[in-house]
Amino acid sequence: MRPASIMTPEIRELLKLNKKEELQEAVKEMHPADIADTIFDLDIKEQVALISRLDKKQVIEIFDELDEYEQFELLHSLEKELSTYLLNEMSSDERADLLSSLPDEVANKFLNLMSESERKDVEKLLKYPPNSAGSIMTTEYISLTPELTVAEASEIIKLAAPKKETIYYTYVTDQQEKLIGFVSLKDIFLSDPTAPIKKIMNRKVIKAQAYQDQEEVARTVRKYNLLALPVIDKDKKLVGIVTVDDILDVVRDENTEDFYKMAAMLAPEDPYFDTGFLTLVRRRIVWLIILLAAVQFSGQILKHYGFALEAVVALSYFIPMLLNTAGNAGTQSSTTIIRGLATGDIHLNQVLKVMRREISLGLVLGSLLGILGVGRALLLQKNPFVSLAVGLALAATIVMATLSGAFLPLLLKKLKVDPAVAAGPFISTVVDITALIIYFEIARALLSL
Amino acid sequence: MRPASIMTPEIRELLKLNKKEELQEAVKEMHPADIADTIFDLDIKEQVALISRLDKKQVIEIFDELDEYEQFELLHSLEKELSTYLLNEMSSDERADLLSSLPDEVANKFLNLMSESERKDVEKLLKYPPNSAGSIMTTEYISLTPELTVAEASEIIKLAAPKKETIYYTYVTDQQEKLIGFVSLKDIFLSDPTAPIKKIMNRKVIKAQAYQDQEEVARTVRKYNLLALPVIDKDKKLVGIVTVDDILDVVRDENTEDFYKMAAMLAPEDPYFDTGFLTLVRRRIVWLIILLAAVQFSGQILKHYGFALEAVVALSYFIPMLLNTAGNAGTQSSTTIIRGLATGDIHLNQVLKVMRREISLGLVLGSLLGILGVGRALLLQKNPFVSLAVGLALAATIVMATLSGAFLPLLLKKLKVDPAVAAGPFISTVVDITALIIYFEIARALLSL
Repeated sequence: MRPASIMTPEIRELLKLNKKEELQEAVKEMHPADIADTIFDLDIKEQVALISRLDKKQVIEIFDELDEYEQFELLHSLEKELSTYLLNEMSSDERADLLSSLPDEVANKFLNLMSESERKDVEKLLKYPPNSAGSIMTTEYISLTPELTVAEASEIIKLAAPKKETIYYTYVTDQQEKLIGFVSLKDIFLSDPTAPIKKIMNRKVIKAQAYQDQEEVARTVRKYNLLALPVIDKDKKLVGIVTVDDILDVVRDENTEDFYKMAAMLAPEDPYFDTGFLTLVRRRIVWLIILLAAVQFSGQILKHYGFALEAVVALSYFIPMLLNTAGNAGTQSSTTIIRGLATGDIHLNQVLKVMRREISLGLVLGSLLGILGVGRALLLQKNPFVSLAVGLALAATIVMATLSGAFLPLLLKKLKVDPAVAAGPFISTVVDITALIIYFEIARALLSL
Repeated sequence: MRPASIMTPEIRELLKLNKKEELQEAVKEMHPADIADTIFDLDIKEQVALISRLDKKQVIEIFDELDEYEQFELLHSLEKELSTYLLNEMSSDERADLLSSLPDEVANKFLNLMSESERKDVEKLLKYPPNSAGSIMTTEYISLTPELTVAEASEIIKLAAPKKETIYYTYVTDQQEKLIGFVSLKDIFLSDPTAPIKKIMNRKVIKAQAYQDQEEVARTVRKYNLLALPVIDKDKKLVGIVTVDDILDVVRDENTEDFYKMAAMLAPEDPYFDTGFLTLVRRRIVWLIILLAAVQFSGQILKHYGFALEAVVALSYFIPMLLNTAGNAGTQSSTTIIRGLATGDIHLNQVLKVMRREISLGLVLGSLLGILGVGRALLLQKNPFVSLAVGLALAATIVMATLSGAFLPLLLKKLKVDPAVAAGPFISTVVDITALIIYFEIARALLSL
């Protein structure tokens, strides 16, 4: 949910009194993103009343800031003329996002309201898979030809500016529409007006492939400090650009997805309060049931060692501590590796280097906590063999958990599965089962059971 | 670790043969960020040899791309003349980051190599606390006065361009240096050259306070799709700007910090392979020991209920499943709330709304998994009362875990503690102890122990 806009009460009042001029005056100085916040607070009738009373150019700017669900609701409720206008004039990437989120029949209804060229534009964008560079790019970029002079290019940029996402980067294409260079507005601004573009353009263009993953695109933009990145198809033709403001959204969404996956939830599509209750249930219960099924083996293992528990009931006192600590150690190493893979700090070809570090870490952490474990066990009950079993099992389990936590994300990445799955809850479950076996085998040997 | 640069072998070879011209040729077309990757692969002698052989202007661009540790090593090893040049010419925000990461004596040595004005610049930046807007801003921005014409402003921008972080946004200040407006290069480019800046400037400037948290700054930049954000001090004077490329770094670092904290680790300062082994140990062991100490209560609780375990050993079979599932449910809700607070989707004033949702979620998830739990318990052993106790305890524990997972982050946020602390491992430990009491009390009642 967006923060309740402080302007909402005033705007609501003006709507009630139907004061069109005061309304326009009140929102004139507001940023479109803030007006969008206000719109979120209004009911749909008020939204329609407000949007219908504002300047059309401002409406487009506001509309681009709304979530897909709000956009859909408005398009559905506004007069046909205004919704047609919005559908045709909204920004190309926002429109593709909106249509891809709608059921086919609704999307088709909207497509029919659009002009030929806008419809083709959407259809082109919609063919790219979700989370690809193509799915987040816009087609509203400026392209130049190499023969233009700087002065001519300036004129083109001035004319095109109102309809383009950015004028700060322009892209140079040859006759086959292949990307051959880029020019920043800074270059244009600082260059001799008579110079040809081909002289001032940068020929080493950093670019993305249309089917490349958006996470890699974000890493490229971050590494090279770009304001926009051109996207090419397999024939090297320029097909769109991704701007840095969209990258900020991608980064937020990708991180949220990782946080959810790492907490054993299905990735969310909407903010918390915009999500239906049943969707929340479904998102959580799937992994809860999978993990519940997996951890069942622990019951079988304990039943198998029931004779030991019956002989020395004190053995059971330390089970939660052992499993909890092992789970924590596994969570630590898996999170470290998953995050390192996501940021690009750790690469798949460094498996051995990672494992060497994590084995050493596991041994140090295991030894230290193992000693603490023995001490603690002696305080709670007097049997030195039980205490020794607790300490040894704790040490061995921590080593094992640290190693599994490091290895499983690397393995998943290798298998092209999202490594985020191998986070805390998953590792804890794997570790629980192994830890119990280690514990009881050590106890059986030490206590001669 | 950065990806091993493909250019490294070639550059290493050219260094060995001491071919200065071929070396300059080889790196001429490379992006500074890629040369920085190569430098990371070289040993310090090779780094010095390479840097000393390159064009000085290019060296500055490369130097800005290096990590602080590499910058320090190079400054330490290069000839004094070159290190003095680098210290004075490197970008203002990078330099402040470097000096703030060094011990005082080293920082002072470097400060003494700097010119008066550059030294004052660093000292001004260093007074802002870490993670504040002031700590990530640069002082290399362009400011204009309102009386200038667009044509005059263009000339100023052209002259200033090489030394500034961005020329796409310029800021208008009055005689007291107070920020009164901003002008984009797009405005300048599209406006009549004779118009005064005060006519074309935007007076509603979105800005940050110097002491504002960098996470909020990042949210503002994302919300308003900015390329840069001006930073003002308490007297409303313009003191710097934060550019969007730095925001991408902030977002990455803040997310990494949250991932680490949520996995019960201290936040990292450097990438995995750049971190010393002992630092890795320290980062992990602190929370492992705290949580180990906390989970000790579980031993006491089990000892307390030892009579029940001795009477019905089957009760112990279900302890891992119970604690594991409760931990997972708690991890899910705490992660949801922590992430919602971080992205701004959930606000502190929505505590009741959150708790209502999570109670309902807990009840639904608890009931479903409770039923599965009864079934599973019946398969493993025949006592229907034990099975019923397992199911009821599972349901009650999931409700309790879901609620604690949602409530604790909100409480911490209210107390101005980072809510990320109340993530999976912490919640699991709290939940373990409560879950055991719930389980044994239900069992005792049902089995009349």
